[in-house]
Amino acid sequence: MDRLIEKIIQKQNPTCVGLDTRFEYIPPETAEAFGERGDSMESAAKAIFEYNRLILDAVCDIVPAVKIQVAYYEMYGVHGMKAFYDTARYAEKKGLYVIADIKRNDIGATAEAYAAAYLGQTALNGGSGLAFPADSVTVNGYLGSDGIKPFADKCFANGKTAFILVKTSNASSGELQDMMLESGKRVYEQMADMVQQWGRGHIGKYGYSSLGAVVGATYPEQGAGLRERIKSVFFLIPGYGAQGGSADGAAGCFDRSGLGGVVNASRSILCAYKNPAYAGQTPAQAARSEAQSMQAALHEAICRKAGISKIGEGAGA
Amino acid sequence: MDRLIEKIIQKQNPTCVGLDTRFEYIPPETAEAFGERGDSMESAAKAIFEYNRLILDAVCDIVPAVKIQVAYYEMYGVHGMKAFYDTARYAEKKGLYVIADIKRNDIGATAEAYAAAYLGQTALNGGSGLAFPADSVTVNGYLGSDGIKPFADKCFANGKTAFILVKTSNASSGELQDMMLESGKRVYEQMADMVQQWGRGHIGKYGYSSLGAVVGATYPEQGAGLRERIKSVFFLIPGYGAQGGSADGAAGCFDRSGLGGVVNASRSILCAYKNPAYAGQTPAQAARSEAQSMQAALHEAICRKAGISKIGEGAGA
Repeated sequence: MDRLIEKIIQKQNPTCVGLDTRFEYIPPETAEAFGERGDSMESAAKAIFEYNRLILDAVCDIVPAVKIQVAYYEMYGVHGMKAFYDTARYAEKKGLYVIADIKRNDIGATAEAYAAAYLGQTALNGGSGLAFPADSVTVNGYLGSDGIKPFADKCFANGKTAFILVKTSNASSGELQDMMLESGKRVYEQMADMVQQWGRGHIGKYGYSSLGAVVGATYPEQGAGLRERIKSVFFLIPGYGAQGGSADGAAGCFDRSGLGGVVNASRSILCAYKNPAYAGQTPAQAARSEAQSMQAALHEAICRKAGISKIGEGAGA
Repeated sequence: MDRLIEKIIQKQNPTCVGLDTRFEYIPPETAEAFGERGDSMESAAKAIFEYNRLILDAVCDIVPAVKIQVAYYEMYGVHGMKAFYDTARYAEKKGLYVIADIKRNDIGATAEAYAAAYLGQTALNGGSGLAFPADSVTVNGYLGSDGIKPFADKCFANGKTAFILVKTSNASSGELQDMMLESGKRVYEQMADMVQQWGRGHIGKYGYSSLGAVVGATYPEQGAGLRERIKSVFFLIPGYGAQGGSADGAAGCFDRSGLGGVVNASRSILCAYKNPAYAGQTPAQAARSEAQSMQAALHEAICRKAGISKIGEGAGA
């Protein structure tokens, strides 16, 4: 997790931009300028990659990380997966920490295939190949430790990270996750404890392990409780902005040095050009403005809560 | 679920062949005959598709369904996803019911993208496109109903099905799934009840809804308990054969008409040529022999348990 944390400190920005890029999000005149009508899977996927590039160029010097939601690429089939690959590659070249939001999960042998695909190399006859480039993935832990171990092993061996779903940002997340166990823990608290346990022995210099947790900004109380509960687990925090999460709510997920999480926003940045506050700006300018506004709001809320003036103040060994 | 059940009754075969095809599973001389050395992602992916075709040709007249594990395609990147598409297409042309074992899950808006990708059509400018063809998918329900609804809606609208993970076949599945809730239910029983609830109102002519459950053959007691508990939920039963599940164990997942589930085997069929019992047979012949042997064992165990002579006896309205 250290590489991500260092980028966050360096840019004083605990946020990431989510590239949940649907073709419909691209302004028609922008798609036209790319020469893409979006009337075929190939054309839509090409336009999406071009739009991602434009957004990445606009924000890469101010944001530390990007989260690419693979569902929005899978929906464009093989062409979409190529756009996913190209986007991850481009973000990597721009120096961003690349989180592949894949939420994969399976039994051990199959989880190994996924881990190789996103966090490692695929064995080939006489060599190996790269399926999809990423620094980090999201994983669902419903199958228990043997579905996590292949991801964890790749993280530990290759300096990568995985975020395991603990308390998700959606309205119905509580249906299972909030259920009370006989032990007195809720299901998401049990999952949180397992995530902390799985990462034990792999703690980096800021006190966080390679295995993080997904904790929705839409549940500030649970987020703050989890921050206290699993101190060595770094959070990926979706649900800010369009989904309803606030900066003050998210700030509870951070520690006394202003570290401990990275907050994601997708639609509010990709579609910032629709925001009246940015009237007259191009999509790229509006995305940058919104990313700056998000950075400022979170920086202020986190530092105020921690009583510090800089993110990372007093952190590290 | 009716289309799958009818194929099962017609072929008197409650099994499906799992195409978890790793390049290493293909005998070197077979790969060579395809002209593929597997020394690049493209070559490995092409060989996998050719091998799948050979297996599908060998078993398509005797098995009702195929389960394609997408992880083994994703690991070969964009080329792998093309092999996944081509395999699903080919299986469909051969009249097989295609289960895409994707175990996807996400918040509502994103689950919609996955559902479009595998069970529907992707909206395009002035039309729509097909991302990946399938009759059915597997889904993880940790996020609750709003992550399930988009899949359920596509199932109900398009005559497709989804199998939601309830009690998985892996050794560590109990770490979370077997935990006892305050309510007196185990987590997997709670998930089972939710699956039954989500499918209510969409029951087909054999008494099963469009939303099924994944129940591992490796946990026969839990499988039999679930069969009694959620009577309108059809089971996808992995873990038979190489993973250790037996025919008698799996038989507990079936109802009094010998319906209620489809048992998957992957490695034991793909690698049947390594089985001394089939010495001298080609990979295709060995796969067919093993598929026949599996069909015979399950047919016998299921019919014996139910006291019937034919699968589907007395079923339907």
